Amino acid sequence: MSDLAAQIQSLGRRARVAAKALARASTADKDRSLHAMTDELRAAHAEILAANARDLAAGEKNGLSAAMLDRLRLDPKRLAAMADGVRAVASLPDPVGRVQREWTHENGLKFARVAVPIGVIGIIYESRPNVTSDAAALCLKAGNAVILRGGSESLHSNLAVAAALSRGLARAGLPAEAVQLVPVADREAVKHLVGADGGLDLVIPRGGRGLIETVVAHARVPVIKHYDGICVLYVDRAADLAMAERIALNAKVQRPGVCNAIETLLVHRDVAAKFLASAGQALLQQGVQLRMDAAARAALGDAGGRASQVVAAEPADYRTEFLDLILAVKVVDSLDAAIAHVGDCGSHHSDAIVTSDAATAERFLNEVDSATVYWNASTRFTDGSEFGFGAEIGISTDRLHARGPMGLEELTTYKYVIRGAGQVR
Amino acid sequence: MSDLAAQIQSLGRRARVAAKALARASTADKDRSLHAMTDELRAAHAEILAANARDLAAGEKNGLSAAMLDRLRLDPKRLAAMADGVRAVASLPDPVGRVQREWTHENGLKFARVAVPIGVIGIIYESRPNVTSDAAALCLKAGNAVILRGGSESLHSNLAVAAALSRGLARAGLPAEAVQLVPVADREAVKHLVGADGGLDLVIPRGGRGLIETVVAHARVPVIKHYDGICVLYVDRAADLAMAERIALNAKVQRPGVCNAIETLLVHRDVAAKFLASAGQALLQQGVQLRMDAAARAALGDAGGRASQVVAAEPADYRTEFLDLILAVKVVDSLDAAIAHVGDCGSHHSDAIVTSDAATAERFLNEVDSATVYWNASTRFTDGSEFGFGAEIGISTDRLHARGPMGLEELTTYKYVIRGAGQVR
Repeated sequence: MSDLAAQIQSLGRRARVAAKALARASTADKDRSLHAMTDELRAAHAEILAANARDLAAGEKNGLSAAMLDRLRLDPKRLAAMADGVRAVASLPDPVGRVQREWTHENGLKFARVAVPIGVIGIIYESRPNVTSDAAALCLKAGNAVILRGGSESLHSNLAVAAALSRGLARAGLPAEAVQLVPVADREAVKHLVGADGGLDLVIPRGGRGLIETVVAHARVPVIKHYDGICVLYVDRAADLAMAERIALNAKVQRPGVCNAIETLLVHRDVAAKFLASAGQALLQQGVQLRMDAAARAALGDAGGRASQVVAAEPADYRTEFLDLILAVKVVDSLDAAIAHVGDCGSHHSDAIVTSDAATAERFLNEVDSATVYWNASTRFTDGSEFGFGAEIGISTDRLHARGPMGLEELTTYKYVIRGAGQVR
Repeated sequence: MSDLAAQIQSLGRRARVAAKALARASTADKDRSLHAMTDELRAAHAEILAANARDLAAGEKNGLSAAMLDRLRLDPKRLAAMADGVRAVASLPDPVGRVQREWTHENGLKFARVAVPIGVIGIIYESRPNVTSDAAALCLKAGNAVILRGGSESLHSNLAVAAALSRGLARAGLPAEAVQLVPVADREAVKHLVGADGGLDLVIPRGGRGLIETVVAHARVPVIKHYDGICVLYVDRAADLAMAERIALNAKVQRPGVCNAIETLLVHRDVAAKFLASAGQALLQQGVQLRMDAAARAALGDAGGRASQVVAAEPADYRTEFLDLILAVKVVDSLDAAIAHVGDCGSHHSDAIVTSDAATAERFLNEVDSATVYWNASTRFTDGSEFGFGAEIGISTDRLHARGPMGLEELTTYKYVIRGAGQVR
């Protein structure tokens, strides 16, 4: 076994020991630890900023883009937000121990299905150092040990953050190894971590497609992920067009770089001219490039001084997550065509219909097989906070265990506890 | 791509089309299909028995053991039971469409978490042909298409059963491809089926360790499984010893060849002599071989004419699923030692404590990290029917999605349906 493999295996073993202690920890223990972690993050201000400066200098030298450098950068305000984020998790309800269901069999056996921690969770992510503290806090609150693997460009920042978190844990009497960070930049570490010897019960990758594909290719443990957010908005012929325009603008423009922004707009032929003449122009005004099929282009009418923002759509545009002010637009002949398009080209993340026809809406909600489906609302609500989960560890477009936004509850599993009085079969 | 790979990929594609239709099927449609499948199974009596005779003849020629041949054998009674099993699934509640949770956000958005089918499920199993109809019926009721892969020794029986089921589906107006059987004996087919191109959303292997290891090694889709049932019974020092004896006998002897029978008996040192003098002798009377550590052997006392059934335990005995009238016995010094033994040597399937001390029991129930944990009851209750699930597709010792007995509900996932009135962020 290579040194690296042995090092990762050792992280896994220590995490397993910590996980056993965490599974027995009371809510008060865990919350006290989260407060201590908050304090230690604040106390380590200077140390973390110094580590971050080191990462930034290396990043500049290595030619990271301005956007990457911005994501990597910590400042007093961002550090304060990280500490506040950890403290906020302390105030969320503890998901562990909740009786999800209970019943008594006619033989007198009392069954209870009780939420328990998953065990050891791996989080693999890219540049933003705040994920280090956010993910650690959420895993801890749900009673799990976590092994974090951030981007190599933020290694020193993440190490400083993780060290502060571990100090907080130890100070509060929980194992410091409940939060560990892979301390090497070597990309091979990911393969060992997610492989059979990594000791994980679950891995959650958060980042670009390349990262997630690497994790999936090497994982020998369950992975929960989403690759893309190719979200679709369908404006039905029975839509309130003013509402549809507000939703289209919000879902595309308010924050185009996130996974729950729409990438495709489908419009029913019967309302295409009326809707696109108004909404299409409004999108152009907001700086959105429209990639349109011929029918949509015709419906749009004169783009005036914004004609350069209108281009002919290629088939690939309907399968692309632009993460930018770009929108693929298509005219469809029917609800069935819209549902088929979403199933074929979407990414099963968040899709919406605008219609005033309840039967049409219900068909869309039933037949679109996505993690979240909306009627008369923006896809931008697919988010743990907007769902009322208090926080979010990620979003799943997988089908098992968790689908859609994942909060604390999705970081638990369950066991059956059966209490009897001597029953035998 | 090999012919075999193409053949498997084609099964997957047809299953996907069928799954879309099934997801929209009403409860009445599905139940009508299950009744038609029952009728077709009955009508195909002669055809299925002829196919089975062919498998049996080949099995005898190939030297299958008497036990294997018995598992493979169909007769009118077993066939009737298969048909009744399918009909019974029709009477179970439909798990699809159930609103698991609903809430309204302060912005007026109405959230609902709704059960939906998983999609296409692969079931890989060994000799018993009744799994073909049982698994197909359960997957169908939960709205899933299924691809079945039985043992090569039962191929003709399974093909005849699957053909009858498909005829029932078609007669009732649902796609015949909702139930498909891999029609070749080639072992490579399993690798293609569970690989990236197999088109499955989930695979459930049911069989011996070798089968499950093959599936896990090649799976590129989620697998839910259990390898072993190394179930442990711990008799605490505060146990009602008469109750403990009844439970030990039941859990070991009533059906030793199943996964929820106990393989290890732990006894607290303070009650070892009293308990084993009675229960140990009773187990010997039932023909059980006792593999005992020195302390247990001493506590047992004179085994009389049954002394040959008592042997010294090797360390491996505490990690072995005997599936036979063999029991590893060990004396422990404390509850902590018992909990540690279960965590270290058990298989996280079903473990039990007998005690009259509630605090001791609760510690065991909390700290033993197994799918099902029992207080004062036999481990033999780990079973979908005993849990009240009406049926069972398998038992999971995995941690994600489903743990313990899996019924219809565990064959579904969920999606979030959000209904608004034009809300934007």
